[in-house]
Parts: sequence; structure tokens; C-alpha cells
Amino acid sequence: MERVFNFAPGPSALPLSVLERAQQEMTCCSGSGMSVMEMSHRSPAYQAIYDDAVARLRALMHIPEEYAVLFMHGGATMEFSAVPLNLSIKGKADYIDSGNFAHVAAEEAKKYTSVNIVASSRADGYTYVPEWKGRLSADADYVHITTNNTIYGTRYTALPETGAVPLVADMSSNILSEPYDVMRFGVIYAGAQKNIGPSGVAVLIVRRDLLGHAAPQCPKLLDWVLQEKNGSMINTPNTWAIYLCGLCLEWLQSMGGVESIEKTNIEKAAMLYDFLDESRLFKPTAQKEFRSRMNVTFVTGSAETDARFVQEAKAVGLVNLKGHRSVGGMRASIYNAMPVEGVEALVAFMKKFEAAC
Amino acid sequence: MERVFNFAPGPSALPLSVLERAQQEMTCCSGSGMSVMEMSHRSPAYQAIYDDAVARLRALMHIPEEYAVLFMHGGATMEFSAVPLNLSIKGKADYIDSGNFAHVAAEEAKKYTSVNIVASSRADGYTYVPEWKGRLSADADYVHITTNNTIYGTRYTALPETGAVPLVADMSSNILSEPYDVMRFGVIYAGAQKNIGPSGVAVLIVRRDLLGHAAPQCPKLLDWVLQEKNGSMINTPNTWAIYLCGLCLEWLQSMGGVESIEKTNIEKAAMLYDFLDESRLFKPTAQKEFRSRMNVTFVTGSAETDARFVQEAKAVGLVNLKGHRSVGGMRASIYNAMPVEGVEALVAFMKKFEAAC
Repeated sequence: MERVFNFAPGPSALPLSVLERAQQEMTCCSGSGMSVMEMSHRSPAYQAIYDDAVARLRALMHIPEEYAVLFMHGGATMEFSAVPLNLSIKGKADYIDSGNFAHVAAEEAKKYTSVNIVASSRADGYTYVPEWKGRLSADADYVHITTNNTIYGTRYTALPETGAVPLVADMSSNILSEPYDVMRFGVIYAGAQKNIGPSGVAVLIVRRDLLGHAAPQCPKLLDWVLQEKNGSMINTPNTWAIYLCGLCLEWLQSMGGVESIEKTNIEKAAMLYDFLDESRLFKPTAQKEFRSRMNVTFVTGSAETDARFVQEAKAVGLVNLKGHRSVGGMRASIYNAMPVEGVEALVAFMKKFEAAC
Repeated sequence: MERVFNFAPGPSALPLSVLERAQQEMTCCSGSGMSVMEMSHRSPAYQAIYDDAVARLRALMHIPEEYAVLFMHGGATMEFSAVPLNLSIKGKADYIDSGNFAHVAAEEAKKYTSVNIVASSRADGYTYVPEWKGRLSADADYVHITTNNTIYGTRYTALPETGAVPLVADMSSNILSEPYDVMRFGVIYAGAQKNIGPSGVAVLIVRRDLLGHAAPQCPKLLDWVLQEKNGSMINTPNTWAIYLCGLCLEWLQSMGGVESIEKTNIEKAAMLYDFLDESRLFKPTAQKEFRSRMNVTFVTGSAETDARFVQEAKAVGLVNLKGHRSVGGMRASIYNAMPVEGVEALVAFMKKFEAAC
């Protein structure tokens, strides 16, 4: 069967060249006579794969040496627990509630710290990023944000100024899609399965001076200090996922890096939003100034027409366009690995569908 | 390059036919037009892959319906934390200290419960499984054992009778290698990367009546009740690893299942131990009655000769025979996926090496 254009929100499309490379190395990786999955994580061959992935991420995001870069088990949700377990000194934290995952992160943090919801757009269906200015606590342990809201298709267009309070960002759905100044953050984390690689692992970037405050009840594998001391290998890491992340990062470098892919991402998003703004059938759902470049959400206004659109798109190889179960409608996730041709094909199909309506 | 015989303790050898299947499906799995890594974990196609893996494990281990079967993030080490976080009611637990991982599990549990080390062979270098009879507490929340000790090459040849106290077993290094009566256990868990599939995921088998006691500070993803309610998908699971586990379980069924592979495992282990018992150069290190069928440990008595042996074996494609860094010597890990031919080749090489010494 031919490959489809996969608009899934995560796990999501991977570069075909990466898959073909993994395919080729499946039974014998780097001349080892074995699959990367069969390699000891303590072997020099695997260590080289791990180090290579970290080095590529450092290069792509210009991560300074004063930040540790780790691969953690379990994805972003595990870090929802790990953040308060590792950063609570005074016992209070600010959370900006800009979407479902921001909300879930704050709920989880309540187990370990006093959570202050600084601002929320929940009552308005999260169609925008709420205003935080003048509301941040001066004495919080950290301020938590979600830079891109996968379900609603919104993104932060400016970052909170948090002064001496560390800014902690869940960047799962837009990491590596546009340049960020890492120095603005105390902690960045991201589940890999949207814009880095496959699922089951998260990238954690943490300023080293924030390490060393794990709570006594912090599970060993969630303890950032211990993981840092052990090079993400307190126990066997997700060796396959880290290998795949490395291949994806190498691909991104070959595409010109984050600065270059951002231009393509802007172009891809504009193609969709420009059409949506002119369409008489399809309406974008996120407020204009907060539109995500990664997740484009829209509706027809009729649940029946939405369902028919998703079904007919699937039939022509444009798959996983259904919106999140909590909001309905449609969502086109167009992460780095989605080629321009995929977006062109989608817009062409939307035009055709609209014309036939 | 030709495939080697890989005696690594985990991650370890996988069946070649499984790798070839994964290779073939890499860019298009089950006619979906995408890799399994690109599938939404909420899609029917992926749910079928997940359900299939669980069903195969249930069939292979004859797991009754009153036990939940889950795939958990992070491997066995994450369960070292999750066990006390989910099972502490009275706040005390018995641990039998039969090896390094048993020791680490007990150390981690101390964060959450009062740990009673019932018996230990630590002072004797863990060359045997210590005697627990008459030492178990009647009022413990659970008794924790490690059925096979990867580093030292020992195994439990009988299980503790724990009466009403649930028996909790870390079965990472011998699950699926011999039949176990699941009903003897309250909880079985195992990191996948030795005898089930690739790393980054653990299998958890838990009697349903034990669910519901997660501590308030239990991180969401470590909460067994929540994971059970969500079919291991509170968040995105390690979709690739679960897929690979399913393929490995299918392979094991094609080999005749656990009852059949046990015979092969006994044969493979006997081949090595019989030679070791007769060798004038190589000496087995585990006490005879506790010998593991999965990890065969031995020494020459000279660190220099050990190192030369490991090096020369590697040169002929018999790799990862070095013992764990904490004990030295040699270790041949011969899990289910190691074919008889691999063990035959190893014994032949050992004979040749000995003759030349």
C-alpha cells in the first residue's frame, strides 16, 4: 500500500527517510551484527548512539552547557509529576491554564505543591492563551506553561517574563518547530511523539542550578539529579526511541535545522489558515492571534458534515483529521515531518469538498 | 555483516524472524499506510495491536481474568517505586534479598513503607537464594521476590508460601522461560528487554482485588488503578515496544509456548553447566541448586584470562559475554530468543579456548 499523509496529533508522521534508515539497520545496526534493540545500553556502540542524539539536540536548539539534556521514561505526563517533585522548595507554583494538558499538569502538581492558577481560558473552551501579565507570584518555585496547545490549536506568541522565578515549559507539540532561546527557561520538557521521534520517551532540558531538590518521595527514575548523574541510564532507557530520535534530529539538521524548518512551518500553516479564512464552509476555531503552526483546528458547523469530511479525506489518503474527542470538528497536525505536499493535498481536497457541498 | 550470537543480559537477542517482520512493516503496518510508530494510540488499528499483545501474554501464561495485564512505562525499576506506592496499607513489607535488583527494589521501597529484609545472601556475593522459611511476617502488605537474579545467575527453585499475604515477583529475567502458576502471585512484573521484547516498557500482572490502594503521592502514571481503567493508556504508551512485544509473543506461541520453550531452555542451560562442571579452566559461580537457566555465570580464576576469553569470543561472533561490572568474570545470557545453535557455538569455542590454554 502507498504511504498516506498522516495528520495525527501524536504519535504522528515521521520522515520517510528516517523510517527507511531504521528499516535498513533493523537486523544489523552500525556493523554490530545486531539490532539497536538488542544492544546493551552499557555498550560503547549504544553510548555513541545516545551521545549523538544528545549532541544533535544541543546543536539544533543551541542548548548551553549549563543545561543538562536527558531522555526520560514515560513522555510529558511523567514530567507533570516530576516537575513539582523536583522543583518544590517553597511549596508553591504558578500554572497558566491554556489547554487540557496545562490543566492536567496543574492537577497532577497539586499532589506535591500548592498550585496557583494564574490565568485560565478553560471557561472559553481554550480558544486563546489567557493573559498572565501582572498576575505572576514573585515567590513561586516556578511558572509552568504549555507553549503549544495540541487540542485547541493555540500557541504562546510571547513568553511570560518571570524574573528570578524559573519558567518551566511543556513544549511537547512545538519543540524544534521554531527557535526558542533556551536561556529564557529553567526547564523545557517534551514528549517525543509529536516533533522529535516515537512515543515512550520525553526530552528534558534543565538548568543545572535547579537540580538537587528532589522530594524524599520522588520515585528514583523521576529524580532529575540521579538521572543526570547516570546519563539518563539509572536503568535501561528506551533504547529504540532514543535511536529513532537521533535519526529524526539528523534529518532535521539535513533540512537546515530549526531556523530553516520554521520557515516551512510558517508556510504550511499559512496555506491552511489562508484557505480557512476565505472558506464559506470551513471555519477556524482558534483565535487568530494565538493560532498554532502545528495543529490547525476547524469545523464546518455541522457534526454530520465534519464526520463526512473526515471519512472522505481518509478515503483519498489524508488520514487522522478528526478533532480531539473532547472538542470534535477537525484538526490537521502538521509537525516538522509533514511535507508541504501533504498540506497542499489537504487544501486541494478541502476546496474540492467545499465545491461539492 | 553477519548476525552475531548475542549473550547480552538485557537488552538482549530478539528472534530474527521478529526483526524481519518489523523491518517489512516499517513504513506500512497492517495496510495502514504508515509505520506503527506513526499510528495514533487511540486508533482502532493500534488498539488491535495492543489487545493482541495482551491476549497472547494471557494465553502464554494462562493468566486468569481476575488478573489485570498492563504495559507500564519505564521498565522494572519504575515498578520498584510503584509496588510500595500501590500496595501499602499497613505500611510494612517483606523483601527477600537475593541479588542486586532485589536489593535496589528494597532500597526504593523504603521511601514509602517499612521494609523488612527477611533473608539475604548479600554477604556471600549472592551466589545462592537465601532461606526464607519461618521468617515471613504474617501481617506484611506483601512479600517481594526476584525470581531470577540476572547478575549472579541464580533462580528460585521453589516459591515462598505466603498464605494470605500477596507474593510480588520481579520476573524480569525469567518470565516466559518456564511455566509459573500465576495464581500463586498477587503481582508479577517484568521489564520487557530480556525475555519479552525491547526496552522502555514493563509488563504488569496484578490481581484485581489488590487494586485501589495507591498512595496520595503516587504519580499518575504509576497508579495501577488509573492505568487499569485506561487500558495502559492514561497517556501515549510506548507503542513501538508493545508492538514488538506482541510479535515476540506470537513467535513464542509458534515455538510451542512456554511449556515447550522450557524444555529447550533446560537443554541449553544443561549444555553449558555440564561443560562447566567438567572443565578444568572454567568454573561456574552460582551454587548448583540455585543455577539460573537464563544467565550462566562463570570464571577462569584469572581476570586476565577472563578478559582474553571475552575478547577472543567476540572476534568469532560470540558477543557480550563479559560479566556484570560489579562481579567480573563471564556471563552467558541465554534467554528464549537464543537459539540452541548459539549455545552449541559457545560451548565449542570454550572447549577450543580451554584446549589452547
